[in-house]
Amino acid sequence: MMLTKLRTWLNRMTPAQMIVLYYSIAVSVAVILISLPISIKPGADWSFMDALFVAVSAVSVTGLTTVNISETFTVTGNYILMFVFQFGGIGIMALGTFFWLIIGKKIGLRERRLIMADQNQMGLSGLVKMLKGILVLIILIELIGAVLLGVHFLNYYSAWEDAFLHGLFASISATTNAGFDITGSSLIPYANDYFVQVINILLMTLGAIGFPVLIETKEYLMNRNKNHIHRFSLFTKITTVTFFGLLVFGTVAIMLLEKNHFLADKSWVEGFFYSFFQSATTRSGGLATMDMNNFSEPTLLVLSSLIFIGASPSSVGGGIRTTTFALNLLFLFHFGRGGRSIKIFKRELTEEDITKSLVVTIMAMIICFTATVILTITEDHSLTAIVFEVASAFGTNGLSLGITPDLSIIGKFVIITLMFIGRVGIILFLLFIGGKGENTQIRYPKERVIIG
Amino acid sequence: MMLTKLRTWLNRMTPAQMIVLYYSIAVSVAVILISLPISIKPGADWSFMDALFVAVSAVSVTGLTTVNISETFTVTGNYILMFVFQFGGIGIMALGTFFWLIIGKKIGLRERRLIMADQNQMGLSGLVKMLKGILVLIILIELIGAVLLGVHFLNYYSAWEDAFLHGLFASISATTNAGFDITGSSLIPYANDYFVQVINILLMTLGAIGFPVLIETKEYLMNRNKNHIHRFSLFTKITTVTFFGLLVFGTVAIMLLEKNHFLADKSWVEGFFYSFFQSATTRSGGLATMDMNNFSEPTLLVLSSLIFIGASPSSVGGGIRTTTFALNLLFLFHFGRGGRSIKIFKRELTEEDITKSLVVTIMAMIICFTATVILTITEDHSLTAIVFEVASAFGTNGLSLGITPDLSIIGKFVIITLMFIGRVGIILFLLFIGGKGENTQIRYPKERVIIG
Ligand SMILES: [K+]
Ligand SMILES: [K+]
Repeated sequence: MMLTKLRTWLNRMTPAQMIVLYYSIAVSVAVILISLPISIKPGADWSFMDALFVAVSAVSVTGLTTVNISETFTVTGNYILMFVFQFGGIGIMALGTFFWLIIGKKIGLRERRLIMADQNQMGLSGLVKMLKGILVLIILIELIGAVLLGVHFLNYYSAWEDAFLHGLFASISATTNAGFDITGSSLIPYANDYFVQVINILLMTLGAIGFPVLIETKEYLMNRNKNHIHRFSLFTKITTVTFFGLLVFGTVAIMLLEKNHFLADKSWVEGFFYSFFQSATTRSGGLATMDMNNFSEPTLLVLSSLIFIGASPSSVGGGIRTTTFALNLLFLFHFGRGGRSIKIFKRELTEEDITKSLVVTIMAMIICFTATVILTITEDHSLTAIVFEVASAFGTNGLSLGITPDLSIIGKFVIITLMFIGRVGIILFLLFIGGKGENTQIRYPKERVIIG
Repeated sequence: MMLTKLRTWLNRMTPAQMIVLYYSIAVSVAVILISLPISIKPGADWSFMDALFVAVSAVSVTGLTTVNISETFTVTGNYILMFVFQFGGIGIMALGTFFWLIIGKKIGLRERRLIMADQNQMGLSGLVKMLKGILVLIILIELIGAVLLGVHFLNYYSAWEDAFLHGLFASISATTNAGFDITGSSLIPYANDYFVQVINILLMTLGAIGFPVLIETKEYLMNRNKNHIHRFSLFTKITTVTFFGLLVFGTVAIMLLEKNHFLADKSWVEGFFYSFFQSATTRSGGLATMDMNNFSEPTLLVLSSLIFIGASPSSVGGGIRTTTFALNLLFLFHFGRGGRSIKIFKRELTEEDITKSLVVTIMAMIICFTATVILTITEDHSLTAIVFEVASAFGTNGLSLGITPDLSIIGKFVIITLMFIGRVGIILFLLFIGGKGENTQIRYPKERVIIG
């Protein structure tokens, strides 16, 4: 009786609502796991609010935290936290499907549709294969990263267990773009270790560039010698160009803006690596090789905007996503030119995608602005620090000017909400709050209005 | 020979380029007029940069100024400045047409198209009649305002010339939403004079609500008793509802946010009038009955966003405009609901208008954000003060936290550019920078991409 009711209720939900429900369950489980007595060091300062905050942060792979992870969590706690953001990063849907496959159940249309909405894929065919591919690929990348970093960390830690715990944690944290650290100060201890930085940039990039890009690249590499003509999708081309365009823009912007500030007393190589790493981490990584407070205000605003843009869709990252930003720019340029269709890489974009990209951007700006206003009421921090924190939460990024532990209860709820929306994505969020659609039977005459 | 070349060159220009050219000429003339020896008090601190800044501010009816008008300008200078913002406010196009009518020339299609783009009207019929109506209406409103205020100001000034100069200046400044003052401190001397405030709010509203609304209302009132069924246009309905919605929202927001701050020691009536006036002035008026620095940070951010939205299209105001904001909101709500057409007031909106509204908003945000970053580099003021100044310039509003006179040369150029874009409007600005359109012969297959 109860079960029948539950099933009826579940069947009535929209895919968007179901995904939000799944995320809610994941967060609840995470809260319990990371609050277990084996997770938390005895005597550590740990409240329910901290548990909720860190759980949402880990499930959404943001990396903002109200507590110092290394001081609060036991070694077991570290592994549990790692499991939580691994789970969050790959996506509840992807893992869900994997479990379906493991227990041998054939994946149904309803479940496929659910996954499709989460990973934002079009078309149902090859979906199961794709999700399996994602999982294998990500775990493979993480293991390679863990071995490389673990071996290297033997230079830093005398015990091999410590070196490999740090290696594994760092690798998963970078690849899933979780951005958590157990060093107590992100990657600042490795500020002059360019090997660690390059590996971390590579891992963060592989996680944030989007699974379709990884899968297409894998196919391209595998079919290279088979006289097989491989075409990268328009999506892959746009997102990759945007991704690396933002990386270069961010690096150059930091170098120029900080030339007479933070980088004034640094060598060219040091300056380049500080700029390059901090630019790369804005996609969604959230790791840092320096204290963000050392950057000047213009740099922090530029970084906030880069974080707001975020990573590729169908990746572990958040924000409005690279393709959204690219389509906005293409359309703005195009609108000025007065043409009727946007051509790029010898393809034309659809009006539906363009409209979607504009909606996502404006909705995201309204949400982030509202959050900023609320935080200026509840928090006693500079507007710059608040804007940076808001962008970081929405971009599921995790960089911060250090105000996270000081946040008021309301402030924490605002940041938790932003992390949730950033992870779920604006499109799904709008579908979620929009409900079941409207009556489209009634029609009225069209009438023009004057705009802007 | 020269003239033929000039004519060929002019004929090749797009309407958008011609309007920018006309505004540039108007600014040049204004620079000369307000810099005449009869305009400036002997010994006053006055540079070319001040002249350019005040000229653009007056032509664009913004009201930001790098100098104190009452300390810098002679009485003649006051009248000249008044003439400049009167000219700017009504719109160079409207006045241009009026001159065409006066000298008896029949208005040609090319000129009509030009005016259409500026006032953003659709359809060419009845345009001349409309522009004539605009002029008569605005001047009538200004004269009534001048008489009402002038008589009232006899309570403040012993000489009737002073009272009526102040009355005329205040009336034109409010009606054109120029926001300039010759009191040296906006309407602060009338902070407890609710008659002056109500008159100013009425005048600002009549100027900022859009000429189509005024004309339709006039027609409605004139035809009321003739058994004539009058229908207000969809534009008038949307912009009026949005206009008064923003007024109410702003008033309530200020009252709530300042309850324990600026309004803490004020009576209910005082608190209401401070909130009501400062909310009304954000549409585009730019006058103030208090020092904006007394507001707390959240209030200033909310006011910045209201100023960014600005006034109705086809009015003397700037910003993204009320209809743009309304269509954004309608579309965001609608997108979530999943319907296929937006119905409002028993009419459907066109996709073209919706897309236009999204483009305007995003472009405006990119422009304002870029300006903000530049100002954080060049100016030594708080982010809040800079954001407020940027919004004020783009919204051609004129409110300020007092940083305008301190701006660096680059800072002044940034603000000048924003006032110019705010007045011309984003749509025209995009058409201007976009040039002549692209080759639409080549077609490619359409391909979807993943968004947000
Ligand atoms: K992150
Ligand atoms: K103004």
